[in-house]
Amino acid sequence: MEGVDHLADERKKAEFDVDDMKIVWAGSRHAFEVSNRISRLVASDPVFKKSNRAVMSRKELFKNTLRKSAHAWKMINELRLSDEESIRFRSFMDQPGFMDLHWGMFVPAIKGQGTEEQKQKWLPLAYKLQIIGCYAQTELGHGSNVQGLETTATFDPHTDQFIIHSPTQTSSKWWPGGLGKVSTHAVVYARLITNGKDHGIHGFIVQLRSLDDHSPLPGITVGDIGVKFGNGAYNSMDNGFLMFDQFRIPRDQMLMRLSKVTKEGKYVASDIPRQLMYGTMVFVRQTIVSNASNAMARAVCIATRYSAVRRQFGSQNGGIETQVIDYKTQQNRLFPLLASAYAFRFVGEWLKWLYTDVTQRLEASDFETLPEAHACTAGLKSMTTSATSDGIEECRKLCGGHGYLWCSGLPELFAVYVPACTYEGDNVVLQLQVARFLMKTVSQLGSGKVPAGTTAYMGRAQHLLQCRSRVQKAEDWLNPRMVLEAFEARALRMAVSCANNLSKFENQEQGFSELLADLVEAAIAHCQLIVVSKFIAKIEGEIEGKGVKNQLNNLCYIYALHLLHKHLGDFLSTSSITPEQASLASHQLRSLYSLVRPNAVALVDAFDYTDHYLGSVLGRYDGNVYPKLFEEALKDPLNDSVVPDGYQEYIRPLIKQQLRSARL
Amino acid sequence: MEGVDHLADERKKAEFDVDDMKIVWAGSRHAFEVSNRISRLVASDPVFKKSNRAVMSRKELFKNTLRKSAHAWKMINELRLSDEESIRFRSFMDQPGFMDLHWGMFVPAIKGQGTEEQKQKWLPLAYKLQIIGCYAQTELGHGSNVQGLETTATFDPHTDQFIIHSPTQTSSKWWPGGLGKVSTHAVVYARLITNGKDHGIHGFIVQLRSLDDHSPLPGITVGDIGVKFGNGAYNSMDNGFLMFDQFRIPRDQMLMRLSKVTKEGKYVASDIPRQLMYGTMVFVRQTIVSNASNAMARAVCIATRYSAVRRQFGSQNGGIETQVIDYKTQQNRLFPLLASAYAFRFVGEWLKWLYTDVTQRLEASDFETLPEAHACTAGLKSMTTSATSDGIEECRKLCGGHGYLWCSGLPELFAVYVPACTYEGDNVVLQLQVARFLMKTVSQLGSGKVPAGTTAYMGRAQHLLQCRSRVQKAEDWLNPRMVLEAFEARALRMAVSCANNLSKFENQEQGFSELLADLVEAAIAHCQLIVVSKFIAKIEGEIEGKGVKNQLNNLCYIYALHLLHKHLGDFLSTSSITPEQASLASHQLRSLYSLVRPNAVALVDAFDYTDHYLGSVLGRYDGNVYPKLFEEALKDPLNDSVVPDGYQEYIRPLIKQQLRSARL
Repeated sequence: MEGVDHLADERKKAEFDVDDMKIVWAGSRHAFEVSNRISRLVASDPVFKKSNRAVMSRKELFKNTLRKSAHAWKMINELRLSDEESIRFRSFMDQPGFMDLHWGMFVPAIKGQGTEEQKQKWLPLAYKLQIIGCYAQTELGHGSNVQGLETTATFDPHTDQFIIHSPTQTSSKWWPGGLGKVSTHAVVYARLITNGKDHGIHGFIVQLRSLDDHSPLPGITVGDIGVKFGNGAYNSMDNGFLMFDQFRIPRDQMLMRLSKVTKEGKYVASDIPRQLMYGTMVFVRQTIVSNASNAMARAVCIATRYSAVRRQFGSQNGGIETQVIDYKTQQNRLFPLLASAYAFRFVGEWLKWLYTDVTQRLEASDFETLPEAHACTAGLKSMTTSATSDGIEECRKLCGGHGYLWCSGLPELFAVYVPACTYEGDNVVLQLQVARFLMKTVSQLGSGKVPAGTTAYMGRAQHLLQCRSRVQKAEDWLNPRMVLEAFEARALRMAVSCANNLSKFENQEQGFSELLADLVEAAIAHCQLIVVSKFIAKIEGEIEGKGVKNQLNNLCYIYALHLLHKHLGDFLSTSSITPEQASLASHQLRSLYSLVRPNAVALVDAFDYTDHYLGSVLGRYDGNVYPKLFEEALKDPLNDSVVPDGYQEYIRPLIKQQLRSARL
Repeated sequence: MEGVDHLADERKKAEFDVDDMKIVWAGSRHAFEVSNRISRLVASDPVFKKSNRAVMSRKELFKNTLRKSAHAWKMINELRLSDEESIRFRSFMDQPGFMDLHWGMFVPAIKGQGTEEQKQKWLPLAYKLQIIGCYAQTELGHGSNVQGLETTATFDPHTDQFIIHSPTQTSSKWWPGGLGKVSTHAVVYARLITNGKDHGIHGFIVQLRSLDDHSPLPGITVGDIGVKFGNGAYNSMDNGFLMFDQFRIPRDQMLMRLSKVTKEGKYVASDIPRQLMYGTMVFVRQTIVSNASNAMARAVCIATRYSAVRRQFGSQNGGIETQVIDYKTQQNRLFPLLASAYAFRFVGEWLKWLYTDVTQRLEASDFETLPEAHACTAGLKSMTTSATSDGIEECRKLCGGHGYLWCSGLPELFAVYVPACTYEGDNVVLQLQVARFLMKTVSQLGSGKVPAGTTAYMGRAQHLLQCRSRVQKAEDWLNPRMVLEAFEARALRMAVSCANNLSKFENQEQGFSELLADLVEAAIAHCQLIVVSKFIAKIEGEIEGKGVKNQLNNLCYIYALHLLHKHLGDFLSTSSITPEQASLASHQLRSLYSLVRPNAVALVDAFDYTDHYLGSVLGRYDGNVYPKLFEEALKDPLNDSVVPDGYQEYIRPLIKQQLRSARL
């Protein structure tokens, strides 16, 4: 059955042009063409084979990553790939490794925090990989609270050096990717002390290993932190630990763009505004949101195709069974995730615009919109990564028993994705930042300060606090204004209710602590509103392609109405809608599922993922699942011999009742 | 710091007697003593070491399981352990293996479905492990729908044999544990065909492998299905595939207690009621619920202890930071899971009683209560396993970055636990069975048939459909009658609303398909009511021990009120409570968290888990987390050498710019 498309019937059902949707998904024809070409380039190279990762030992897996990284670098150079193409290339390799940190954290840290001189010295080395760097911030005892880091960098004016030191076990750097076995250098964050005064956390470029033989320099203790979640996943990465014993570096290796230490040991802040750093944060979080849509899309693609292949129940007299994708329970779990993949895609696109906007304003020294942009990106990072990790696991469950097989791709995708909920800000901590911003915005509502950007709706507080939803029939839930108003009323009323409850406390900080759980919920409501409103903005804009807009329209309302149902308690307890209106929404949601059903497989085809990138037997493009499951099974080392290793020692003595004399 | 109890301060805070709580948790002093003794026996034997599993290859891990199994069997015999002790022993070994299926499925299948003759022949062999058996039901293309199995067993009267055959690739047996490499025998489920007539699915005892050299018998193709979720976890188990090519077995190897085939090929049903089989199902599901409480308790124990050790934020001027367990966001996520562990424990205890009750009634040919018992156990299996797998992952997240380390124990616990959502009935399919039963119960409400057991509350439909909650102040939410009434009103109103919506369809089956998602929600509401009501019944009974009842009281209302908040949409849309009453419940919930906080560590100590069984550096009894994380890291094979394998081939050429000439 090789070469047969088992999903051809599904593809014929589609009511839109898949090729047009691919362009919309990618963001532009250019972006589509780059992704399409590079993903196939990676997929066709046997060095980048992924399917053998689960049976490799940790050492083999790590060495295999080194090989892939070197090979990728060679190809990128030989083919003279652009930056955009190189980034895509590494992403389609789909194996975490030291390069991610070198390019994603080490280089940007020097770019953002280094002086012109420092950039001239270090960046060319980094660009050519003559040095390999990582980003050493997190410590064994300190993660979210950067200000609590313990590593010290004490200036010694006699030698014009900083002494980097780890004073306690909890101050050991712990987690940095690429640190354990590969990096020659690191940007190390440490508490700057000069003249006995603590100036807080600053970054330093520190060489860790000899460039001759790779051995750690004297005063450096470094190694790998051990196995992590999953079989494969981040175990290809050398997340590391690092301790300094009075390790000395020259003064000019402190990253001095924002503040510096003079030869005399004087601490001098530059006049560059601190806010400039926020630009980078917006950029990084935009990338994370865009990755969320990618990961969600991969999981949904696998679950959707397999749900169309898999049949269960519903046959009469031994006839063909029903495709599981036809069950409403399956649709009710799967289609909102499909809609979420698209929703996160479009909000990610909007974040790219936001980043450009913020950058331009920063260059013009306009810091007005920064707090709002900062809160909004924090919230969206948190909300999309949480939803995506839950969504991947839900997709795994939607694949039934076979989803538990490693070769379904979903266990690996889950294990490799979930750290996104923790890195670059723990998701709960981030929502509390959003909540703080919302409380501030509410408190200023009477002051004449007009809320802007994603909080603009709060400027209509008077209306939103008293309006009643005008939904009267199920179709009204396809009216963008009515949907938005319900989400706005819910978000605003939850924020205002938190603010009112806060005001009952004499001590605001104590009140905040007490109400943390409510505050997180208010922040999430605000973030969901943002995603819904950006999806609506997208479908109200120009969209080309036969039937494409229609499909996105359906997905947009599935996204909104499933959230409404999931958080019904919020909507009802704030009286943003009535129980009757909620019931109409459920009704409308079911109708939308029926509209999406015939298009489901084509809607995941639009992601344009290669079988290599998906890495899933269940999600194969051709739907030829069962024979390929057998092929995968036969590759397991346990099947090397019919009689397993251990039979003579541990099985035969049992069966032959000779256990008493056996040595175990 | 060896020997120091870093959690001593936490333990001192407890306001109840932990030893008394241990008895309550275990169910009886006897049960506590057995578990306590056996868990320490296993923990003290180096053969049962678990911490090296993540760095073993699949083959090593599998062989290690064979070794552990043989050693366990030897010890069980030498120490003359009772059945109860043996079961505990295997459970504390905490490594999935073929013995689980032999004792848990193969032996019970013969006991339940075999004739007296068959039991006399096969059970002594099985009891002595002269044969090792598994349970071969699920096929590659068929899981939930047992009636859809394709394997055939065709009777051949000329030879007095059945011909077992796999007619298609999808008919291959796929998943049975112990099948791939170990079992000599299996109970195989196949479609019985005699005289050209299909009599549906029946069980057959089939020998698979030679007892001399373990090679598969001619006509048998068997092997392992490959790697599964997680590093360790179920990869110690040889889940297998199996195909038959016209394989012949004697007629007397059909399990003939319920129906038989004569020498002439005549199919004869016995007069033993089919319902007897349900007793086993109730037993198995009771075990699963009890395991759910165990798994939830392990995760909660790890997260609670680590939340007391871990500190983050909240320090002023470099002072000591706040324990993360003191944050309301942490409490709001952790304490409901702690309460759930206890809740599932007590509902599991009640299910043991239910099993006894059902068994006695069956013996007296009273089948009246069976449908209710069947629905109730199906629903509780589904509800507790879903909540537990989600809860384990939530506990992992509550441990922040370090929860992602394999040595935290939580990735392994998650990967090894999640199959519970799928085996013995997919959780969604099971809730639909509950829903069907509820719809039937509602439809008979007017008929004079009085709902019994867990549906007894439906008999008060008239009251529950119109009552209004009498809650007026936060403390009212500690009133058991008011809490129960809210849960009963919600469950009943959701069921009745589904029934009303169903009645609008001309075709009931079509209506059921259309409303599947709502029906699942109604079923879950019913199941949650059961758990809440059994927890309340528990705390209303006799409970000994200083302060114990008080603690359970707090946990009971945390369990109920967190559910109320989580499913607030249900409660509000059915008008079972008002938004004001919901707000009072949230207030009460926060107060309860404060009451639990000082007792949290002691409440998880009451589970009496050894550090061996927990298998978590973060959850260590002594709280000595950070030094032990280092010890674990240093054991990773990647740390065998300072310069990693692959440096010469793949790192040095990069740094030295000699990649062009390197062979990759």
